[in-house]
Amino acid sequence: MGEFDLIARYFNRPTRRAALGPGDDCALLAPAAGQQLAVSSDMLVEGRHFLSTVDPARLGHKALAVNLSDLAACGARPLACTLALALPRVDEAWLAGFSDGLYALADAHGCELVGGDTTAGPLNVCITVFGEVPAGGAILRSGARAGDELWVSHAPGGGIGDARLALEVFRGTVALGGERFERVRRAMERPEPRVALGLALRGVASAALDVSDGLLGDLAHLLRRSGVGATVEADAVPRSAELADQPLAVQQLCTLSGGDDYELLFTAAPSARERVAAAARAAGVAAARIGRIESETGLRLVDAAQRPLERAWTSFDHFVA
Amino acid sequence: MGEFDLIARYFNRPTRRAALGPGDDCALLAPAAGQQLAVSSDMLVEGRHFLSTVDPARLGHKALAVNLSDLAACGARPLACTLALALPRVDEAWLAGFSDGLYALADAHGCELVGGDTTAGPLNVCITVFGEVPAGGAILRSGARAGDELWVSHAPGGGIGDARLALEVFRGTVALGGERFERVRRAMERPEPRVALGLALRGVASAALDVSDGLLGDLAHLLRRSGVGATVEADAVPRSAELADQPLAVQQLCTLSGGDDYELLFTAAPSARERVAAAARAAGVAAARIGRIESETGLRLVDAAQRPLERAWTSFDHFVA
Repeated sequence: MGEFDLIARYFNRPTRRAALGPGDDCALLAPAAGQQLAVSSDMLVEGRHFLSTVDPARLGHKALAVNLSDLAACGARPLACTLALALPRVDEAWLAGFSDGLYALADAHGCELVGGDTTAGPLNVCITVFGEVPAGGAILRSGARAGDELWVSHAPGGGIGDARLALEVFRGTVALGGERFERVRRAMERPEPRVALGLALRGVASAALDVSDGLLGDLAHLLRRSGVGATVEADAVPRSAELADQPLAVQQLCTLSGGDDYELLFTAAPSARERVAAAARAAGVAAARIGRIESETGLRLVDAAQRPLERAWTSFDHFVA
Repeated sequence: MGEFDLIARYFNRPTRRAALGPGDDCALLAPAAGQQLAVSSDMLVEGRHFLSTVDPARLGHKALAVNLSDLAACGARPLACTLALALPRVDEAWLAGFSDGLYALADAHGCELVGGDTTAGPLNVCITVFGEVPAGGAILRSGARAGDELWVSHAPGGGIGDARLALEVFRGTVALGGERFERVRRAMERPEPRVALGLALRGVASAALDVSDGLLGDLAHLLRRSGVGATVEADAVPRSAELADQPLAVQQLCTLSGGDDYELLFTAAPSARERVAAAARAAGVAAARIGRIESETGLRLVDAAQRPLERAWTSFDHFVA
């Protein structure tokens, strides 16, 4: 099967909202009047962002999910995406699974695949997403103010750090079997982007980003862009039953510098607590208050009794980790 | 140097037209009223799209050029781009060169780098470009009509097929030295996207695409999308002095199925000949009339005396070639 047959068979479903879908030199998007276009691009590399053994449907899901998560963090409504794919060989079963996983999530969020590229090469998945947000209405990293409270979203009954816990199981540093492993593995391989929450937080959150490289490391980006500091209560970071059963050091590693969570970390004024709770309810997720924004720059970590904790964490960095 | 330092040092120049540039979860673009957004994405893999020995500045140029060429083919004005980059290691000299080559071309076309991603992995460059085009004004592949004439752009004094000729020199099947090799090598490594020509052809060309996989193979896409056929006069396809000195079989291979040309292949009514010539002059390029569009589907190749030629060509396909 050649490149063009491959595209026709797996990546050429009809589009409705785009002015022009796949098949020409460019796709054409027609953003509604008064809307800005939010754009983000993420590249996934085998062995770095996913294991070679991953179910291709889950990989298709995740490749789009991590991009939709960026739209969610800005409060943008998904509109379209492009897919560039390098494949070592044409494997039809793999392509069918990958394509199904990608389209299922795309359809769930009204995010049309409008174009892209395929080539032979070491497995690499690069998706660029486009979303709409009212002009001036995007939630930025730079809006946090001293006095704001710090929140993180999570699945009801879940928490932060499960993806990292699953990775540690794959690495053999943690033992976890059966259903419990399958649950955290699902968190790693099939994250749910918090698109509905991002939309509900427009006008409520003062700043937001998505947690992809580890909670504290990502928080540091938000603090730097906002010119503020924060105190985070480590014990308040929500964790699943699977993670809560691990030694404290594993819990802290996974919750504070785990990575691959794709939850929203956001700030809001204390007066907005009820509105935050309502936004989370409306989006079908939970939100935990884990700290406060302060004018003193830097990041302070405390326990439940507000005693300072040693900051024994690092953020994920592709060129260091 | 870590991921974030790398981005800060090499890929974070200020933006002016974008509503929000690099550094947040998403970039924000604000297309002007009445404009559609043209989007295209191309992925370049080492060994497939470029040789490992290529000057990194030329690679930075080419990675953006092949994307701008897609905007040109639609008659879209460049607005912004994202860059996703997988690197086997952090090589500062390479990054500085790549970044300079990319930004030089981006600046020349007012195409701002607004965001992207970097990761460790086998070298892979994925750029997504965004351009503006008046609603309904894009030049599509589907607009060719029987009776239209077929044109291809080229550099004054140059032609189609030089990039393939250079590749054949690298492969050792053709000998070419000194200045002559440097000239065709430049065609391969540093193509000039025909953005100005694409803009000038709005309302003049009935259909267009850019020649990236070989002239006849790409033409077949245009014919299929338009539901028409064509006769192409092989000898009318322009070629450089370097290529014209090669055996006829090499000339035909390079001009008809060479690939990597990034010239515009377009159609226009015979009554538009003068306007085509004026558009080419205004854009500082040449345009050659190489055939005609016919209602009978399929592609017919003839010599200067209109005698049928054997179609001994193939188009480039990443999964077949």
